[in-house]
Amino acid sequence: MKYADLSTAELQSLHESISSHYDQFKAAGLKLDLTRGKPSKEQLDLSNALDGILEGFYLLQDGTDVRNYGGILGIPEARALGADILGLAPDEVLVGGNSSLTLMYQYIDLMQNHAGNSWHREAKAANGRVKFLCPVPGYDRHYTICEQFNIEMITVAMTEAGPDMAEVESLVSSDPLIKGIWCVPRYSNPTGYTYSDETVSRLSKLPIIAGDNFRIMWDNAYAVHHLADEPDELSNLMALARKQSTQDSVVMLASTSKITFAGAGIAFLGASVQNLAIFEQFLSGSIIGFDKVNQLRHVRFLKDSEALAAHMAKHQAIIRPKFDLVLAKLESALGGTGIAEWTTPRGGYFISLDTLPGLASEVVRLADEAGVKLTPAGATFPYGMDPLDRNIRIAPTFPSLDQLRQALEVFVVCIQLASVNKLLSR
Amino acid sequence: MKYADLSTAELQSLHESISSHYDQFKAAGLKLDLTRGKPSKEQLDLSNALDGILEGFYLLQDGTDVRNYGGILGIPEARALGADILGLAPDEVLVGGNSSLTLMYQYIDLMQNHAGNSWHREAKAANGRVKFLCPVPGYDRHYTICEQFNIEMITVAMTEAGPDMAEVESLVSSDPLIKGIWCVPRYSNPTGYTYSDETVSRLSKLPIIAGDNFRIMWDNAYAVHHLADEPDELSNLMALARKQSTQDSVVMLASTSKITFAGAGIAFLGASVQNLAIFEQFLSGSIIGFDKVNQLRHVRFLKDSEALAAHMAKHQAIIRPKFDLVLAKLESALGGTGIAEWTTPRGGYFISLDTLPGLASEVVRLADEAGVKLTPAGATFPYGMDPLDRNIRIAPTFPSLDQLRQALEVFVVCIQLASVNKLLSR
Repeated sequence: MKYADLSTAELQSLHESISSHYDQFKAAGLKLDLTRGKPSKEQLDLSNALDGILEGFYLLQDGTDVRNYGGILGIPEARALGADILGLAPDEVLVGGNSSLTLMYQYIDLMQNHAGNSWHREAKAANGRVKFLCPVPGYDRHYTICEQFNIEMITVAMTEAGPDMAEVESLVSSDPLIKGIWCVPRYSNPTGYTYSDETVSRLSKLPIIAGDNFRIMWDNAYAVHHLADEPDELSNLMALARKQSTQDSVVMLASTSKITFAGAGIAFLGASVQNLAIFEQFLSGSIIGFDKVNQLRHVRFLKDSEALAAHMAKHQAIIRPKFDLVLAKLESALGGTGIAEWTTPRGGYFISLDTLPGLASEVVRLADEAGVKLTPAGATFPYGMDPLDRNIRIAPTFPSLDQLRQALEVFVVCIQLASVNKLLSR
Repeated sequence: MKYADLSTAELQSLHESISSHYDQFKAAGLKLDLTRGKPSKEQLDLSNALDGILEGFYLLQDGTDVRNYGGILGIPEARALGADILGLAPDEVLVGGNSSLTLMYQYIDLMQNHAGNSWHREAKAANGRVKFLCPVPGYDRHYTICEQFNIEMITVAMTEAGPDMAEVESLVSSDPLIKGIWCVPRYSNPTGYTYSDETVSRLSKLPIIAGDNFRIMWDNAYAVHHLADEPDELSNLMALARKQSTQDSVVMLASTSKITFAGAGIAFLGASVQNLAIFEQFLSGSIIGFDKVNQLRHVRFLKDSEALAAHMAKHQAIIRPKFDLVLAKLESALGGTGIAEWTTPRGGYFISLDTLPGLASEVVRLADEAGVKLTPAGATFPYGMDPLDRNIRIAPTFPSLDQLRQALEVFVVCIQLASVNKLLSR
């Protein structure tokens, strides 16, 4: 039943039943939350063995006492773990504290303000502003970093194969002040799309057009976070870049935030050895070394790729039913209505949903009034502005299945209500 | 026996015996290190109970699961611990990751580049450069932060009562681009001096002359690190500043780096509630939250002021004999010779020694050739430049008593040798 094909009378009767449904939810005084991509308690419990895992042994093979000061690049064992996750050599990986966001921020700070030939200086000389490409919808915290550094954001369309590369290449070749692009290459936030081999290959050549100072910020936050039985394949950008001699333009990020403890994991930054040495030197002004004790805990706990995969299978077992529930509910309530489109992610933490144009903020408002918190409309776009006001990010992992079911009931009714209202006011 | 009073013949004979001593050390192939202020293995062992202390309990009284994302200000329990250490109210304390240095750096970054009325902007408008006052000798990593932000450093003399306040006041009143001062108020690095009540009181009034944008960076790194039986008293700068309405100019720092694990502790930044809100907002661009699991570990382990004091007494029992050994050796080998002066710290991690003018780098070089690494001469001064080339920082905590004894034997002989050489070449 396509809503747009309904007569006014049919829409009016539909409106009546949907409204009464909505009012019931409103009266129920719900308090549910579908906002941030947080792991659930059950998922966190999978890693409780971290605390106490060291059993008094703090020495590394090289003799380092992880309890003491020093070593910005991280302990060799943790660098190897990060290298495994990112597809790099261990000497291309720095292991940080609990936040890959901080590492991204610091890397951008280095390039913008502190590098020999800084972006800021280059922009000033050209009487312009540093710019970054942002595939949309995307991750709001990438945008916040750009805002904090006064970097102008230019949106490019995100497709099922990754950013629209024709658009990217054309933009980059027309403006030398475009200094980078944000990428979440596997199970992208929020669409769940994984970049195709062709996209990754074209990205590896992009710095040839864009210049040495261009950076591909490769935020591989969901590198091992599969939902499907067969993981999506992702080409190794660094390997391709090496062939193009563009490896200094590749900056890779990952963390264990959604592997172990969301607030107390370890983060990785991958880059060419030369690039990493510059970053290490920059960081030495602000830190003596990251928490090596927690790095060692993680190495002892996650062991190797095989153990890591087994651990991630436990996460999958917990969260796949939640994604399945959301997708089933969306299909049953909205399938064939023409009032919403959504993605079917094969990994990651989100489902991306598009309403009819102009309705996302209205849906978020309606849901909020009925006690269901959604990510603010526009959050998946730079400056919080979704030009079509239609994208909503759904984060199903944190609530219980029961809470999720309730929240989804409300959510779909809000979409129906907003859509019928819109169609009636045509 | 004052070296300067010796005849040339006496000096020559002294030179002979000292040289042969020195050559013996050189031949022994020693490898000793008196450089950085690191706790020893024995000290680190005092906190091994941290790992595993949570026993599966991750919930706070307010219901927060410390394993998950969020909460930049830190967990309430850890804020209370930091408040105890800094002499503040819990809502005046932010608890960070493992590095107070990072918090200082981020705070300076905020003031220099990101605040509404940033230092950088003010300096640009005045066609000048932001400047900071640095009591000398001082802590090299404070200087590195200034260098990274292109902040010009102006030295002021450090006395037994703290920075020379007459000098400080006169400088500040003559140049509005002086935007701050670095202070290590208790057991200062490297002298071990504690600021007097009068110094702290005058500092609390300094922002009245210097303006709202002035910041006193109060790095209380050794707040609870007493060596003497009776702790040095330190006035509460924040309490005094409140009376002067200068509380927004006070930024306090501390950490557990030298209480628990040097590389895996927790750090504190204290400031007025208003100031802290601005800092929190600034940090939200680069982090979702610091490691709350480690914060909870520390709260469980350090408990309260009483337990903390008992824990610090164990550190004292380990390191006081090391300080005593150094001081005894300096006295027996250099006392009355007039070729060196040194401080007798009642807390902290260092002893500051002054050679005859112009000899510090020579002593460091001689020691290095005999296998004893000392902190580079000049490191206690901005830009690594000690104008009189006489200050050397001794860090006795890390080596064993035996290693320390050996290193000190070499060290004093190097001072004697350099001094005799200098006197002979008069």
